[in-house]
Amino acid sequence: MTTTSIEKPFNRILLTGAAGGLGKVLRERIKAWANIVRLSDIADLGAAGVGEEIVQCDLADKAAVLALMEGVDVVLHFGGISTEANFEAIMHANIQGTYNIYEAVHKHHVKRVIFASSNHAVGYYRTTDYIDADMPTRPDGMYGISKCFGESLSRYYYDRFGIETVCIRIGSSFPVPTTRRMMVTYFSYDDLFELLRCSVFAPRVGHTISFGVSDNPGKWWDNKKAAHLGFQAKDSSTAFTHLFPDSSAYPEKDDITTIYQGGGFLLTGPQYK
Amino acid sequence: MTTTSIEKPFNRILLTGAAGGLGKVLRERIKAWANIVRLSDIADLGAAGVGEEIVQCDLADKAAVLALMEGVDVVLHFGGISTEANFEAIMHANIQGTYNIYEAVHKHHVKRVIFASSNHAVGYYRTTDYIDADMPTRPDGMYGISKCFGESLSRYYYDRFGIETVCIRIGSSFPVPTTRRMMVTYFSYDDLFELLRCSVFAPRVGHTISFGVSDNPGKWWDNKKAAHLGFQAKDSSTAFTHLFPDSSAYPEKDDITTIYQGGGFLLTGPQYK
Amino acid sequence: MTTTSIEKPFNRILLTGAAGGLGKVLRERIKAWANIVRLSDIADLGAAGVGEEIVQCDLADKAAVLALMEGVDVVLHFGGISTEANFEAIMHANIQGTYNIYEAVHKHHVKRVIFASSNHAVGYYRTTDYIDADMPTRPDGMYGISKCFGESLSRYYYDRFGIETVCIRIGSSFPVPTTRRMMVTYFSYDDLFELLRCSVFAPRVGHTISFGVSDNPGKWWDNKKAAHLGFQAKDSSTAFTHLFPDSSAYPEKDDITTIYQGGGFLLTGPQYK
Amino acid sequence: MTTTSIEKPFNRILLTGAAGGLGKVLRERIKAWANIVRLSDIADLGAAGVGEEIVQCDLADKAAVLALMEGVDVVLHFGGISTEANFEAIMHANIQGTYNIYEAVHKHHVKRVIFASSNHAVGYYRTTDYIDADMPTRPDGMYGISKCFGESLSRYYYDRFGIETVCIRIGSSFPVPTTRRMMVTYFSYDDLFELLRCSVFAPRVGHTISFGVSDNPGKWWDNKKAAHLGFQAKDSSTAFTHLFPDSSAYPEKDDITTIYQGGGFLLTGPQYK
Amino acid sequence: MTTTSIEKPFNRILLTGAAGGLGKVLRERIKAWANIVRLSDIADLGAAGVGEEIVQCDLADKAAVLALMEGVDVVLHFGGISTEANFEAIMHANIQGTYNIYEAVHKHHVKRVIFASSNHAVGYYRTTDYIDADMPTRPDGMYGISKCFGESLSRYYYDRFGIETVCIRIGSSFPVPTTRRMMVTYFSYDDLFELLRCSVFAPRVGHTISFGVSDNPGKWWDNKKAAHLGFQAKDSSTAFTHLFPDSSAYPEKDDITTIYQGGGFLLTGPQYK
Amino acid sequence: MTTTSIEKPFNRILLTGAAGGLGKVLRERIKAWANIVRLSDIADLGAAGVGEEIVQCDLADKAAVLALMEGVDVVLHFGGISTEANFEAIMHANIQGTYNIYEAVHKHHVKRVIFASSNHAVGYYRTTDYIDADMPTRPDGMYGISKCFGESLSRYYYDRFGIETVCIRIGSSFPVPTTRRMMVTYFSYDDLFELLRCSVFAPRVGHTISFGVSDNPGKWWDNKKAAHLGFQAKDSSTAFTHLFPDSSAYPEKDDITTIYQGGGFLLTGPQYK
Repeated sequence: MTTTSIEKPFNRILLTGAAGGLGKVLRERIKAWANIVRLSDIADLGAAGVGEEIVQCDLADKAAVLALMEGVDVVLHFGGISTEANFEAIMHANIQGTYNIYEAVHKHHVKRVIFASSNHAVGYYRTTDYIDADMPTRPDGMYGISKCFGESLSRYYYDRFGIETVCIRIGSSFPVPTTRRMMVTYFSYDDLFELLRCSVFAPRVGHTISFGVSDNPGKWWDNKKAAHLGFQAKDSSTAFTHLFPDSSAYPEKDDITTIYQGGGFLLTGPQYK
Repeated sequence: MTTTSIEKPFNRILLTGAAGGLGKVLRERIKAWANIVRLSDIADLGAAGVGEEIVQCDLADKAAVLALMEGVDVVLHFGGISTEANFEAIMHANIQGTYNIYEAVHKHHVKRVIFASSNHAVGYYRTTDYIDADMPTRPDGMYGISKCFGESLSRYYYDRFGIETVCIRIGSSFPVPTTRRMMVTYFSYDDLFELLRCSVFAPRVGHTISFGVSDNPGKWWDNKKAAHLGFQAKDSSTAFTHLFPDSSAYPEKDDITTIYQGGGFLLTGPQYK
Repeated sequence: MTTTSIEKPFNRILLTGAAGGLGKVLRERIKAWANIVRLSDIADLGAAGVGEEIVQCDLADKAAVLALMEGVDVVLHFGGISTEANFEAIMHANIQGTYNIYEAVHKHHVKRVIFASSNHAVGYYRTTDYIDADMPTRPDGMYGISKCFGESLSRYYYDRFGIETVCIRIGSSFPVPTTRRMMVTYFSYDDLFELLRCSVFAPRVGHTISFGVSDNPGKWWDNKKAAHLGFQAKDSSTAFTHLFPDSSAYPEKDDITTIYQGGGFLLTGPQYK
Repeated sequence: MTTTSIEKPFNRILLTGAAGGLGKVLRERIKAWANIVRLSDIADLGAAGVGEEIVQCDLADKAAVLALMEGVDVVLHFGGISTEANFEAIMHANIQGTYNIYEAVHKHHVKRVIFASSNHAVGYYRTTDYIDADMPTRPDGMYGISKCFGESLSRYYYDRFGIETVCIRIGSSFPVPTTRRMMVTYFSYDDLFELLRCSVFAPRVGHTISFGVSDNPGKWWDNKKAAHLGFQAKDSSTAFTHLFPDSSAYPEKDDITTIYQGGGFLLTGPQYK
Repeated sequence: MTTTSIEKPFNRILLTGAAGGLGKVLRERIKAWANIVRLSDIADLGAAGVGEEIVQCDLADKAAVLALMEGVDVVLHFGGISTEANFEAIMHANIQGTYNIYEAVHKHHVKRVIFASSNHAVGYYRTTDYIDADMPTRPDGMYGISKCFGESLSRYYYDRFGIETVCIRIGSSFPVPTTRRMMVTYFSYDDLFELLRCSVFAPRVGHTISFGVSDNPGKWWDNKKAAHLGFQAKDSSTAFTHLFPDSSAYPEKDDITTIYQGGGFLLTGPQYK
Repeated sequence: MTTTSIEKPFNRILLTGAAGGLGKVLRERIKAWANIVRLSDIADLGAAGVGEEIVQCDLADKAAVLALMEGVDVVLHFGGISTEANFEAIMHANIQGTYNIYEAVHKHHVKRVIFASSNHAVGYYRTTDYIDADMPTRPDGMYGISKCFGESLSRYYYDRFGIETVCIRIGSSFPVPTTRRMMVTYFSYDDLFELLRCSVFAPRVGHTISFGVSDNPGKWWDNKKAAHLGFQAKDSSTAFTHLFPDSSAYPEKDDITTIYQGGGFLLTGPQYK
């Protein structure tokens, strides 16, 4: 007898990209929110645990995605390619894939999606800029462009059909910052989880773009346009200050990885020569 | 011998609406600010305590209000109707009444008024908006419209005669939030009292509109236009989070009480059918 | 046989304040728009012409206004007091009166109102300011405050009931500018009529605030928030430049009638001593 | 001997989508700009005229597009699907296709592209809004989303490689407005050609988004962010005012085709039911 | 008998820099404004004509400037160095010199100054930017910095003493544009004279910064912050379009004289190597 | 053997104005940042301590300043006159002096300067204003004007040569606030030192203007334009609240020292009578 599951807010939550870096982090944590957690990835997800459903599927497969959405109450869309790659691969996974998610969401009357967007949607702002979510996008590669696409697409589904989405432009969600840039973009797992909680449970979110970042000194992103989510970061990269002592090694004037927010990403991928 | 009263900042402070919900809360607290607290209401105020003067009066009675202002140093104008009502009643109490207050203030050379405005002056902004005090008003009923009137009127008395006013757009000032909306709009009594203190004692306030709200997560109002008051909320609705557990019960798409900030107020009053 | 009247866009248009300065100007011109022009004023309107209905009434008389609205398709609300006056008179005619208009409009399902607001709703901006309709109001007297009230009220009726209003902040609509200030605020009758035409016939206006001013050099008002009306002024005060030759007679530093846009209005009315 | 061709500014200009509605209009006109006009479409283009090269090709064919770009100095990218359609078709032609164009442009060191974007990139703004090119996109369908993609992509190629693009959000470029909406969005062929000329020949354009619209009364779009192009519309829909006489037939309150700028487009395509 | 001079608006106007390029242009034209035109320069000014007073003086000579201001009603301050030069020369003529002017103006109770500032106060904005007078200055050399100084200084004299100034950021005021950049910055002599007239005779100007530019296509400067001056350019560089035919000769990506508004100025002066 | 000095981030740091109030405070503290601290002032600096170099020099002496910069890695420019004074003295020390610093910085290829600007660059904003670093300057005297000059000059050296500067508009950096105004402008020595640390060690600062102020209630300055520095004030004037008890002694309406942010400074200096 599982009386406890009755008390969970949702019956079924879908997490795409569950085999990815953040997917693995979230897999356990989100069990508190739903009786059933449906996990999806193109990669192997291991055996289903208690309260889990495993669906291995390619997001670019429209019929598979439609089936995947059956009986789902809310979606955490973390699937697709999560780094710079060649355009066709990104188009397949992130453009066709995200379209398939929204068409399935629409057909199955799912009310809300949390979409894992990325800071690389605005990576061509300067590191001396302080930006908010209403400023024009400045993607720093094919990956960032695909995230801009997802933000446009989800905006349309909200304006046209009232399907709510929170787009989270995730900074650097890792256990520990490993570069100076990550001291600015660090997003702790606990803060990520809290922002997801706010995004999933706020009564109304409309279409919201929120930057996913901890309370780091020098952060570039102003979350005022997402104030209604009620997210308050608890962590800060100051916990790691000792890893990056004060240094006079100023970067070169023309080092674009420090001029622009996107950092090293600007030099990756097939577009760079 | 009353040497202590000599040390109080003001000789006489006037509190209108002293029999109302917030009036009762303030009656004791503001004694620290003035040798004499003059209390006024259309309703019975009981017996005058030490350092109190009781004046029962209808704010729409011009002569009575003129007399009420005699010898007053500063005014806390909390009088009038504080909820949605039919227009004529509101015009009588809040429009004619507030005009009478300002004419009396002008004639008696009072230098400053703290005016209890309301969040319902902007209740038709969306719950996903984040607004500041320079944005156009969006009243959500006759009550809210009368508060817009008070803000316009007091602006005029400042521009024309230099009479200073702080308009406080009060959120929900109650002991405990009783709805999800109040988790956003909660304004603790201590925070209300502190904002009043800042408003009364700041050396210069000009004409300032400040949102009266505690430091609640997800709050809709940016107080940067009132930064010079120096108000810093100490309380937060997070103290009551346990009363409103995470829930998947999303409101209906067309439920205007969750689409707009004004909440249930939008459905009250004679205007609604 | 009156086949021509069949081709007029509306069956019945209501013009309040028809005996006033602008009312008289409009009385003939608007006949092109409706089979029947209902004219209302507290003052005598003379005999009804062809296609006219005359209703003498006090706008503060709720029942009379309700009757006045019977069978009306669209309202040009020019009634009430159109200059600075004592507050009670203004409250009676402009606050109670305008409320009565909107309640009648609501009860009779009229879809659109054109409201004669005034530049005196923003008369306390400086003559070196350039403002648009989203900036906070700065009324310069009781008259201006009553116009702010009308703008708030009509906004509410739009947000709550979908009743559309165009508020026209009329500058100086006279045959000829008679002061230097009027060289800036001049609004020719032809331009007034054209702005009314745009306001009445644009398919959608929502709630719009438009400045009523001709294409005068040095004008203070940016109409971009009313761009969708499609109004383009044809006239300009340059036609009267010869009346105000270049002069070195700079006003005194502390002459508020030239510091603020409201001009001489700032020194009128019972508030001034 | 053809000395005149020597005087043309460019050697070779590429026009994609040359068989489309606007492609046909431009085919003759742009001959003045280049010795050779290379015309491309997936549809038949007829025989090559003097100074023309014809290349029938599918923009989704990467190799074909790479070959198409050989020897090109400047590109007018009007190709792809120009109306609402199912997503896969749009992804093929407009997303893969535009990517192919930019990769070819990059590989062949072409310096500038004029990209035919669309007002449907912002079709979910209201008809009472007045917007500029820095405001967030609000696409009104799959077609509009593909145009947002093209704008993001071209921005990246500018930020990363310095390839300049002018994105023209074309309104309604037809000989005559056939709906009331087109009175607002009308873009005459002459104005289109002039905006193209400005875009092609301005010494520096960086990455610019310009609204393609004539000088129509009531237009929704502020081109100040593209002021440096020097475009000044010569035509106006006022030439067609007689086709749309003043009418009192206000649209229904919930008619989204008049609430939003996108108009009838909002109800087309496979997404609508 | 000179009855005509009695009708001139001012008794005495002072023009500094009267031997300079624009000084010579203005010398005759401004005679219509004053009975006496006092002309000053460090260079020779020739013989005084009818209604002229000639004062040769170094603006850096405080006592001389104080004497120069005796009996003056209004000042057109065109003196100092008007091109890039070494800092000490500029400090002498433009910084010390302009300070001397304002101290003399203050001591002699002159009410208004028209200050010839320069577009080089903002020369480091991009040629794809569209700026207004409230945006931060971006000087492009020592000359531009000295103009920023003059704007700061005159602002102070207004805020502190009420002395009014119009700062005109002059574009390129020459008979004919001789470079492509001048097609954007062209400021005809007639338009210069008209802007001066507006600046001198507007009843109130406070402290105003106005861009001095004709109505050229593609101009970079939005004069809305100076709208109250009532200046409307009559001329345009389109009169010279034939001098600069359409050309495909795009500038190099790193050619800063086309990236930034300051143009060739960026490469002049002792600071450049 | 001094192995510890090898670990210091810089080899040599230059502090100008080292004998001034803040210079003395910083002299010891900044030793942690560099093997050698070069101290400069026009006044006597006492004997050089360990790791110190003493250079007495007049900043207006170009050759001396050029020599002073030899071998310097980073500059803290606190030299010059730090209060209102007559213009010629300020021009000598602050205008010529700061120019000399930047020319020397340029010639010696120093990469970064921290420039002690002042809140008096914006002292003519109102005490009810809340401003950020992009708003136009409003200097309140000759001293403030010289700081505006330094900000313009350093902006130029960044735009033209890539030399980075952080301009710190210092509030009131003293041990204890001694006036009510200083409760708003207080900048503790620890917070000053921390802001300097952020300014010196942030990898990229471009040209940044930051307000130097502790986390005081009611502060007038929004540091969002300097967010990338990562500065977070630790102190607040609330520690001194007991020194300024609540008081009803409102300042006079026309007391400009409380109307404007500059305070008593507005009444000092030779300009005031």
